[in-house]
Amino acid sequence: MQLYFSPLACSMASRITLYEAGATATFVEVDPKTKRTLDGVDYLTINPLGLVPALRTDAGDLLLENAAILQYLAESHPEANLAPRSGFARARLQQWLSFIGTELHKALFVPLFDKALADSTKTKTLETGAKRLAYLEKHLQAREFLLDQFSIADAYLVTVLNWKIATPVALEAWPAIAAYFARVKARPAVAKAMQEEFALYAEEQKRHKAA
Amino acid sequence: MQLYFSPLACSMASRITLYEAGATATFVEVDPKTKRTLDGVDYLTINPLGLVPALRTDAGDLLLENAAILQYLAESHPEANLAPRSGFARARLQQWLSFIGTELHKALFVPLFDKALADSTKTKTLETGAKRLAYLEKHLQAREFLLDQFSIADAYLVTVLNWKIATPVALEAWPAIAAYFARVKARPAVAKAMQEEFALYAEEQKRHKAA
Repeated sequence: MQLYFSPLACSMASRITLYEAGATATFVEVDPKTKRTLDGVDYLTINPLGLVPALRTDAGDLLLENAAILQYLAESHPEANLAPRSGFARARLQQWLSFIGTELHKALFVPLFDKALADSTKTKTLETGAKRLAYLEKHLQAREFLLDQFSIADAYLVTVLNWKIATPVALEAWPAIAAYFARVKARPAVAKAMQEEFALYAEEQKRHKAA
Repeated sequence: MQLYFSPLACSMASRITLYEAGATATFVEVDPKTKRTLDGVDYLTINPLGLVPALRTDAGDLLLENAAILQYLAESHPEANLAPRSGFARARLQQWLSFIGTELHKALFVPLFDKALADSTKTKTLETGAKRLAYLEKHLQAREFLLDQFSIADAYLVTVLNWKIATPVALEAWPAIAAYFARVKARPAVAKAMQEEFALYAEEQKRHKAA
């Protein structure tokens, strides 16, 4: 299995999932600026969208989209219990994966990554985002994880919440989310993944400065 | 089963799915402006996010998020074959559901619905959207549907593509997508759902004008 990733991008959720499962993969780093792998391959020839993650399965298929890859990884390692396998519990997992992917990742954080974002759009993005975070805050007040136990949805959520460091999203206003973030970050598999990707991110920034 | 919907919103994909399965549900219309159901219930007491669709299952659970609801509906009507049930085919379905939900629905169409969107954001949104549509165009050039047969991903895609009428997204530039849209729209279940929701949408607009 090959996982195409960029440091601290949403692909980190797949690394967390693999580490939580006690598994690994061949990690292929993609520079988000040049859209080339570190060994010089044009990533657009692999994924024309240029987005990470992408997963090359052992059968040779290329799977795209975080929600799909995370569910595929969980199903490939059933013994790790990282996703409910059937019934309403699976529907609830899919609800959270979709909420994180659409309401937080795409609607809140991605616009805020744009340094040239118009002020009016920024204000509106933060206002709508605050409603989404209020909903999440309420859900997490009485829970350790999004579902009854750690799942791929938590791997995705901790990855996305980590982007607060690069945006004006401040978790101080959401104590249950802040406590959740600290709690999940402290899990050995999550801590290992984050430590590695922060180091790779620092190297990426150095490369960009040198270029 | 109760489906909370607004006319022509992404909840239409659930109506299409139900009709394709030869099934139905109690459809509860939510006014997107007042956030009230047509019989006067404050929808925020049902779904604090105020978003449609929401599905009340026969067991009384409330399920949110389009991708989750569509997969739940497909699994509730297995005889209709609206979603691959296992293996890589299911992963591919989840990839397309996620692509439509994140790249088209949230990243392309939702910003363009905002009449007050800053010009710079609008230009960037259309530029990125064009890359996503080019990817979709290539995929659809050799295919009738997103997967090997009609699925819930097509129900979602036809619903989202229909929003071109309210945005500057023009399918003329993407002949395979335009042909796909015409083809899927002509399916009896899709045509019935769209006809009903266009009529409800017209009534909604009349109510808003009268108010």
